[in-house]
Amino acid sequence: MKGIFKSHADTNLIDLGGGTTRRILSWNDQLMLVEVGFEAGAAGAPHTHPHVQSSYVLSGKFRYAVEDESVEMNPGDSIVVPGGLVHSCECLEAGKLLDIFTPAREDFVK
Amino acid sequence: MKGIFKSHADTNLIDLGGGTTRRILSWNDQLMLVEVGFEAGAAGAPHTHPHVQSSYVLSGKFRYAVEDESVEMNPGDSIVVPGGLVHSCECLEAGKLLDIFTPAREDFVK
Repeated sequence: MKGIFKSHADTNLIDLGGGTTRRILSWNDQLMLVEVGFEAGAAGAPHTHPHVQSSYVLSGKFRYAVEDESVEMNPGDSIVVPGGLVHSCECLEAGKLLDIFTPAREDFVK
Repeated sequence: MKGIFKSHADTNLIDLGGGTTRRILSWNDQLMLVEVGFEAGAAGAPHTHPHVQSSYVLSGKFRYAVEDESVEMNPGDSIVVPGGLVHSCECLEAGKLLDIFTPAREDFVK
């Protein structure tokens, strides 16, 4: 079909180490959805990229930092991170984030 | 903070009628997250817009159509709809979609 459909069952679970996993969900050049799983205590190290990112909490509890400020995030909470800002997160209770990028993170699918 | 954080508790539930609701979550000009609730049997009528859209099933079951094809979507399933394509959905079991747009749907916040 002309829409890019991705069944969750057809995604691959990628073990990133350190208690984190990644599944690439549906994407095209302009928009990419990525499910990121975290064990309690696991972290996304501070990093930056030119892509605009949003994170939506599917489950669990996180402390999410952008530059020098952080916020606690619970299921249903969301954040948009403008391109180029340093961001990171720490998982306080095991769960999953839905990360969304525009444009797509081509480095994830090379 | 420099990230645009939105607590789910601080979002407004908008009744769109016909068994559908909308909550605008975090957004900036380039990326907008929107939670859309559906009662069973409710529908998103066929429409089109230049924005690229993705829909992620948070809960429930949907039949989602893009142009002349459709697919059944369950929790965790996702779809990207390129800009300009006619799309619609029918809710088969009550639930919620997370709709993501790039750029933002300015018409939602006027």
